[in-house]
Amino acid sequence: MVQIISKKTVSFIGQKMATQIDEQLFSKYGFKVEQLMELAGLAAAQAIAAHYPKSNVAVLCGPGNNGGDGFVCARHLQQFGFNPSIVYPKESKNELMKSLVTQCETSSIPIQPTLPTNLHTFPLIVDALFGFSFQPPPREPFTQILKTVRASGIHVFSIDIPSGWDVEKGAPEDTADDVIHPHAVISLTLPKICMRNWTGPHFLGGRFVPRGLVEEMQLQMPEYPGFEQIVKVED
Amino acid sequence: MVQIISKKTVSFIGQKMATQIDEQLFSKYGFKVEQLMELAGLAAAQAIAAHYPKSNVAVLCGPGNNGGDGFVCARHLQQFGFNPSIVYPKESKNELMKSLVTQCETSSIPIQPTLPTNLHTFPLIVDALFGFSFQPPPREPFTQILKTVRASGIHVFSIDIPSGWDVEKGAPEDTADDVIHPHAVISLTLPKICMRNWTGPHFLGGRFVPRGLVEEMQLQMPEYPGFEQIVKVED
Repeated sequence: MVQIISKKTVSFIGQKMATQIDEQLFSKYGFKVEQLMELAGLAAAQAIAAHYPKSNVAVLCGPGNNGGDGFVCARHLQQFGFNPSIVYPKESKNELMKSLVTQCETSSIPIQPTLPTNLHTFPLIVDALFGFSFQPPPREPFTQILKTVRASGIHVFSIDIPSGWDVEKGAPEDTADDVIHPHAVISLTLPKICMRNWTGPHFLGGRFVPRGLVEEMQLQMPEYPGFEQIVKVED
Repeated sequence: MVQIISKKTVSFIGQKMATQIDEQLFSKYGFKVEQLMELAGLAAAQAIAAHYPKSNVAVLCGPGNNGGDGFVCARHLQQFGFNPSIVYPKESKNELMKSLVTQCETSSIPIQPTLPTNLHTFPLIVDALFGFSFQPPPREPFTQILKTVRASGIHVFSIDIPSGWDVEKGAPEDTADDVIHPHAVISLTLPKICMRNWTGPHFLGGRFVPRGLVEEMQLQMPEYPGFEQIVKVED
């Protein structure tokens, strides 16, 4: 059971604020990307396991930190009894991303650059393509992937930002076909402004922002119960 | 609620096996210390929050990875509403340990090299001094700390190995006064042989060992429910 909180109790933040929080965590507050990515990916996997039955799941990973969250999420999903496959269209040269690839490969989680040809057999897709630093529009090879996923009608669970959305303005005009229409979303740290009018299932994770940073930035953080790492956000 | 499993369903491992698993995780399986330490410290904090009421808590951190787990545990304990203070008698020059110090300092978690003079006001002590690579006997400045903690009668929660214990033979003879007599323990990855006859509260965490390594080393891993990161071990 995931506890429900009201969306009125938390801040919705813009792209600039999200970037500032991120920068502060890694500079003044001394965090390592590896630490927070592990907690973010774990929270995403927990939200998925709380909301969907165990199944095959295609995890779409971009080349940046959002993609890294996706790799970590896939690893934990396997521990939770899901059967993940990773789609990684654009390989990063980043050392941590290479380690994440090794971790998944040695755990027998398949990684391929394109969508599986049997995509229709996957009941669930995890979208970890673009995060809070994304600027629309998406480019190739991602445009084609977004179109195929959109056309498939398969349920998509987005990590932090539904890919193709503007972090503040949300989904582009209705006719755009290279954008995720998620079934559920997990916001990390705090929901972004694009999620304000979202009415679908909405989780929140990232229980790691230190008190000093919360005060400095005047953030309204969610109240997590007990030792839980996720909550659900409703009206 | 933490799910209970029988101790008969998991392997109890020796010092050599624990070292081999650790080495494999960081070499062949490509994990970063930061990732697994974060999960270990989180699991320890969750076990503490599941078992004890919120309170002041003194977290004793050694200079190695067990101490690192302690720093991470302290950070999460603060998120869970505890009020941690760190005792860090022997500063490490390791880059990650320095980051962990920064993370706690900027979160207003006090760090001092000696036990607080008002130790008797702490209802709980977390023992993260020595882990599975410890060889008895302990040396100064740890001997004096272990003696004071022992004499205080305060409840101690040990991470992985009660400090001063031999990883396989357990506590030294009854007359030794420089050894932890824990109130509760969390074993990480798998319980060590010294825990076989332990009858107190016993948690197990470290839900990250990849299937390939489990098979390669013929390990009997615990069955964790749902997306939980800890279980409790009973007869």
